[in-house]
Amino acid sequence: MSQSVAEAIISRSEMLQLTSQILQKVGTPKADADSVADSLVLAQEAGHASHGVIRLIEYTNFVKNGTVIPNVKPELISERGATVAIDGRWGWGQIACKFALEVARKKIKDLGSISITVKNVNHIGRLGEYVEALAKENYVSLMWCNSDPSVAAFGGRDRLFGTNPFAAGIPNGETPMVIDFATAASAEGKLRVARANKQAIGPGTVIDKNGVESLDPNAFYEGGALLPFGGHKGYCMSLMIELLGGAISGGHPATSSRYERGNGTVLIVMNPEFFVPADSFAQDIAESAARITSTTPAHENKPVLLPGDVENLQRAKNRGGISISSPIWESIIELEKRL
Amino acid sequence: MSQSVAEAIISRSEMLQLTSQILQKVGTPKADADSVADSLVLAQEAGHASHGVIRLIEYTNFVKNGTVIPNVKPELISERGATVAIDGRWGWGQIACKFALEVARKKIKDLGSISITVKNVNHIGRLGEYVEALAKENYVSLMWCNSDPSVAAFGGRDRLFGTNPFAAGIPNGETPMVIDFATAASAEGKLRVARANKQAIGPGTVIDKNGVESLDPNAFYEGGALLPFGGHKGYCMSLMIELLGGAISGGHPATSSRYERGNGTVLIVMNPEFFVPADSFAQDIAESAARITSTTPAHENKPVLLPGDVENLQRAKNRGGISISSPIWESIIELEKRL
Repeated sequence: MSQSVAEAIISRSEMLQLTSQILQKVGTPKADADSVADSLVLAQEAGHASHGVIRLIEYTNFVKNGTVIPNVKPELISERGATVAIDGRWGWGQIACKFALEVARKKIKDLGSISITVKNVNHIGRLGEYVEALAKENYVSLMWCNSDPSVAAFGGRDRLFGTNPFAAGIPNGETPMVIDFATAASAEGKLRVARANKQAIGPGTVIDKNGVESLDPNAFYEGGALLPFGGHKGYCMSLMIELLGGAISGGHPATSSRYERGNGTVLIVMNPEFFVPADSFAQDIAESAARITSTTPAHENKPVLLPGDVENLQRAKNRGGISISSPIWESIIELEKRL
Repeated sequence: MSQSVAEAIISRSEMLQLTSQILQKVGTPKADADSVADSLVLAQEAGHASHGVIRLIEYTNFVKNGTVIPNVKPELISERGATVAIDGRWGWGQIACKFALEVARKKIKDLGSISITVKNVNHIGRLGEYVEALAKENYVSLMWCNSDPSVAAFGGRDRLFGTNPFAAGIPNGETPMVIDFATAASAEGKLRVARANKQAIGPGTVIDKNGVESLDPNAFYEGGALLPFGGHKGYCMSLMIELLGGAISGGHPATSSRYERGNGTVLIVMNPEFFVPADSFAQDIAESAARITSTTPAHENKPVLLPGDVENLQRAKNRGGISISSPIWESIIELEKRL
């Protein structure tokens, strides 16, 4: 078991303010800093500490080493038919993705369905944020992106693919279903925690440098690789995200010669009302949500959850103030002082 | 191990002719019968016997019991912006899907991206066929459909979702990558074979009526359920396909009150040339294919495969005549005589 870590409860406004302050100190215009801060705090609030304010340490380093340019605006590089291509110009990924959402909202009015790519962004944050926002506006969306290679092909040894998240949003009134998962068997961050705590990891997660499955997290850091989730099927998802995220966006797959870094992103948005009456769609989803959550659980007292339920529970817990590990919050306060 | 079954080698033209003949005998117009026959023979040739000519037994029963109407044409019920909704009118699913492809080809010329739904079709066959055809024309596509419930939610007991296939086609010259997998841990047909042969099935495939994992295929038939592949992530895919396949198409999810039967289908087609230069996309994919297949295998002499490789190997084997189990081929000959 992991050791218990002291938790601080920080008010939303305080967390937002400090986060924005740090982003401004490294050269981000105030409006953009507030927007990126909002994304990080939303992730923290939803219980995804790995995508929360801890990222400020990495993000400020990105600016220092020139891999993020904090004061550029994303550029719409092509807009034809029901397609849009955006160049993030190595600014903040969240700003480029929110720009993509703005473009989607405008163009979908007449088109009902739109495909958008984003390239040249270092880290777009938590994909669930974007598909959830669209779902609350009654749009269905799919989203994915590639990233630096750490995952082996099914039956292979080398690190070929990123952890490559896949996300989808399904409108359902105020509580849309929000799917957002890495196509790797585990996030790399979880291996790091297991290594620090000298814990074993689950089977099917990692292979060592000889391609042999290992329960030792060190196997990954000593020349091994993560495995895709779900065997050859998860491999197909991982490959699809790497190749299509990279090649359609123009950011290139990690498996190609021109790949540098970053999240090559694809976003597909659909308005269900273009296909079926709005109330028919809403009825189908609401009834399905009720049916799924009332299914007999395999294990007593462990009801079946919908995608997004875990995050909603965390948000409810964080309503009076957002929980964060004290050492992490202290390090963010220190970071702000050093800048 | 399964017992060896005698194999017959049947010429492509003979298999096509008999298949079309059977479909015509139950009232299918010749052109449509030839087209559905082509789909079944393509699946047989690619090594997917479960989606091959054995389906004729089921298909002719569908016509007898009125769940398929063999002589109707699919109808375009709405066409707005970059969206199209098609009603298969309970005719052959393959005819409705090929109509969807025709519509996609026309509309994508100006739009570059299009989303199409198909409802009221009993069985659309192998999704890989459609995404492969589009990939050979240099279109990227995603496709999925829901179906009769046999799969439990992650952590649940009841059969809620279909085996719900997900497919994607990635253009790569004459050998596109073709992804096509069930989001259930196994096809139901494989359980049937294991039961007949009194074999155990793999872990993570089936739960019994008490929600307990079982290696006995009978557990499924005695009130159990299939599991989704890949734990909670596969569950998310299965749920997404059920809800979006059903609700956007208007065929309804199996988890809703209005579901009757059939494959509620979503097809998304993109032309990469609308986003990036054609040669950039082609280079990224070709380089990635080479990189992935040249990765060091985890197990010596077991090179890593690309999605679609297994089918291409089967096609090569079947070039001089298509292999089929003799008892199945005999039963198809008998079927034709009885009609």
